Amino acid sequence: MDQDGVAKAFVDHYYQTFDSNRAALGRLYQDGSMLTFEGAKIQGAAAIAAELTSLPLQQCAHAISTIDCQPSGPTGGILVFVSGSLQLGGEQHSLKFSQMFHLMPTPQGSFYVLNDIFRLNYA
Amino acid sequence: MDQDGVAKAFVDHYYQTFDSNRAALGRLYQDGSMLTFEGAKIQGAAAIAAELTSLPLQQCAHAISTIDCQPSGPTGGILVFVSGSLQLGGEQHSLKFSQMFHLMPTPQGSFYVLNDIFRLNYA
Repeated sequence: MDQDGVAKAFVDHYYQTFDSNRAALGRLYQDGSMLTFEGAKIQGAAAIAAELTSLPLQQCAHAISTIDCQPSGPTGGILVFVSGSLQLGGEQHSLKFSQMFHLMPTPQGSFYVLNDIFRLNYA
Repeated sequence: MDQDGVAKAFVDHYYQTFDSNRAALGRLYQDGSMLTFEGAKIQGAAAIAAELTSLPLQQCAHAISTIDCQPSGPTGGILVFVSGSLQLGGEQHSLKFSQMFHLMPTPQGSFYVLNDIFRLNYA
């Protein structure tokens, strides 16, 4: 699969998992992974999974507007930049967000998330 | 200077240069650098400088809302994630944007932009 294909498949999988089974997102990270969520810094798969699971979002649905990707250098990493909107359960309006992921290849031929930065864009 | 300091100094310098002397932005990129601007992919310092200079923005002023950064791995790179707004000359309203940079160290102890992805967040 080419880089655009990897990015698209990752984004589809990530937000589908976020919206249906958030606890399972921890599998996408490793111990050296970093998440910055609205300015809060969290490190390591277990802590990141705990943070994502504890977010006060009962139900949410992400809608993706754009996906951009670039190779991050000679290590085989892929930078994925996402913009979209987030609809919370029971609310009519949605919140715009932007998020970037740095995907790194695993020896098994898959990818994990090394870097993850999320921001709401208060419209 | 720590990573947060590097990120802040870079962001200040980048947008000040963008708003005052856009042609000089080319110095921040190298031949292997990549820019994705609203989905258009441009590679190399010269092409990126030409693209940025040719944008149909007579006057613009960036206002930065947030700066997040993370180390991108063992190469000494820094991921910088910016959100803010962009006011165009003569217009009252401003456009929200998000942008990410992947800064890489140079042998001279400075940094250059390896990756740059820019998106307007149509509010």
